Amino acid sequence: MKAAVLGAGYMGSAITFPLTHRGIAVNLWGTWLDDDMLSSCRRGKHPRLQKPLPAGVRLLPSSELQEAVDGVQAVFIAVSSIGFIPVFSKLLGCGGIKEAEIYVLTKGIVEYQGKPERISRAAAAMFEKKFGQQPLWVSVGGPVKAMELAHGIPTLSIYGQNSKAVPDISRFRTPYYRIRSTYDGVGVELCSAFKNVYALLLGICDGLYGQQDRLYHNFSALLFSQAAAELKEILSCSGADPETVYTAAGIGDLYVTAQSGRNRRYGELVGRGMQPHKAYQKMMRDQEIAEGYPGLKLGLRYVKKLCIERRLPLLGSLYTIIVEAGNPEKILTRFASGL
Amino acid sequence: MKAAVLGAGYMGSAITFPLTHRGIAVNLWGTWLDDDMLSSCRRGKHPRLQKPLPAGVRLLPSSELQEAVDGVQAVFIAVSSIGFIPVFSKLLGCGGIKEAEIYVLTKGIVEYQGKPERISRAAAAMFEKKFGQQPLWVSVGGPVKAMELAHGIPTLSIYGQNSKAVPDISRFRTPYYRIRSTYDGVGVELCSAFKNVYALLLGICDGLYGQQDRLYHNFSALLFSQAAAELKEILSCSGADPETVYTAAGIGDLYVTAQSGRNRRYGELVGRGMQPHKAYQKMMRDQEIAEGYPGLKLGLRYVKKLCIERRLPLLGSLYTIIVEAGNPEKILTRFASGL
Repeated sequence: MKAAVLGAGYMGSAITFPLTHRGIAVNLWGTWLDDDMLSSCRRGKHPRLQKPLPAGVRLLPSSELQEAVDGVQAVFIAVSSIGFIPVFSKLLGCGGIKEAEIYVLTKGIVEYQGKPERISRAAAAMFEKKFGQQPLWVSVGGPVKAMELAHGIPTLSIYGQNSKAVPDISRFRTPYYRIRSTYDGVGVELCSAFKNVYALLLGICDGLYGQQDRLYHNFSALLFSQAAAELKEILSCSGADPETVYTAAGIGDLYVTAQSGRNRRYGELVGRGMQPHKAYQKMMRDQEIAEGYPGLKLGLRYVKKLCIERRLPLLGSLYTIIVEAGNPEKILTRFASGL
Repeated sequence: MKAAVLGAGYMGSAITFPLTHRGIAVNLWGTWLDDDMLSSCRRGKHPRLQKPLPAGVRLLPSSELQEAVDGVQAVFIAVSSIGFIPVFSKLLGCGGIKEAEIYVLTKGIVEYQGKPERISRAAAAMFEKKFGQQPLWVSVGGPVKAMELAHGIPTLSIYGQNSKAVPDISRFRTPYYRIRSTYDGVGVELCSAFKNVYALLLGICDGLYGQQDRLYHNFSALLFSQAAAELKEILSCSGADPETVYTAAGIGDLYVTAQSGRNRRYGELVGRGMQPHKAYQKMMRDQEIAEGYPGLKLGLRYVKKLCIERRLPLLGSLYTIIVEAGNPEKILTRFASGL
């Protein structure tokens, strides 16, 4: 079997490990932002993952997308959410894509025709316009930190299919990369998108209280359970199966994102008193993108489109903290005392 | 209003803070194990909570249970699970108890007439035998670390009522002690009992990998979501509402117990290589009781009584690690690779 991975950042590079483990021939294509990354990989280590990519992975620069997807059965898309629409649009211009299986690791809500939209919905519209049919689509989620996947840490991923036509995903399973599947692809992608946003809150709580052994675990557990309840509301109102929140795709991913990673770190900076936009810029300078920050703005527009923002008071509190630069401690304490 | 709190350890003492905050007159009764604790409180600080109890809390030694409950409307029981049956039995011998509201903060499965049983079920049988009716019973759960409650950290507790006759629990609510109620008392008590057990696993995972910045968050998130799924199975097969797992009583409490506290610390010791029974004894010497350790044995007997142990593979793995002293890393890795 032959597969292309689009995007040579953390997740795209990490997924090449289980794929090659299973004997799949992998073309790793870098976007126009990834050229430096590919050069580093050619010289030795992947600069983010801090280890060489598996032997045999073919590296292809942004100019060679057609070459990258030529004759592949599966395309894994792992570009950033901002890059998704332009990359997918280019992909549709390539030959042989109509029948390919498409696995999407990109997380988030995208802007499509001026409106906030789920990635799979925007992509399906684009695909249908081009080919007059739906793509063979799988939204990939679950608690998967790329760095850990690349280092063979036991990991569970959830593959959300959009139809029964997608072939058996057990072809990608390894002893350390476990996969469960569901037909609730919409639920999986919404969990992936919004857990990044809610994880900011757990980071903020840690930043506010987690120094000098201050006590705050009751508070952060309260936020965690409210985040799960609001995720459920978002899925419910989007036609997804609300139960998906309670699988590894939802609470599992929220848990891991609250424990470690860029969104949590971003929240911590804000909790410690840094202005939200400055914290984002500081991380950008360190080449760390906290996707929850732009994700929050798009996410709020998405829930407003569904007219459910009033049912999501914690999301509203987060918006006040991050976008309106409100005082985190006051706002979160007020939120808790209103429960 | 007048209330008695039975048990002067962490949780019993902590609950006196919101109660007195609401102007309730509180008698704090210590068991025969708490006499030293009460003496310390009289001299100044509560030795566990590291602060004085609220002014006006009346301290009563184990010999004065009748005095403690005389004329009270509500009895809060916060003794250890091992102490529950003997204390409840004594309580039933006191005058004026038949009409009292009973709030139970004790967590765990108890041994009743030689069998593992839910606390509320054992107590209901004892109460009915004595008075020919059911008690006004509320199982109290949710992510509540006693130390944090005593220090006014925003906290959400879940009160699971067994009938509509129990009066309004908003009488106990303060700005920092929030309460939600449910009629699924059985779900609340089972979550409280089993989350202590499953939290051992998150501690073990931390102990195994959490040193020297090793990567393991994917793995612990996988365990967290599996623990939630198994809790749901246990509730389902006990006639409780499985959805209760997904509230603060379930995932919220599992979250806080995984982050901090004695059960997590116990798990960490085992993860770092200490023999399970030695780790328990070490903590006992430091006057720290990890209730998840005896809770695991009783818990496994409870699920065997329901004949569902095969549907709980993670609980089985934990049993192999703790009771049969199996190698934690091997057993957990094998568990993950079987998903």
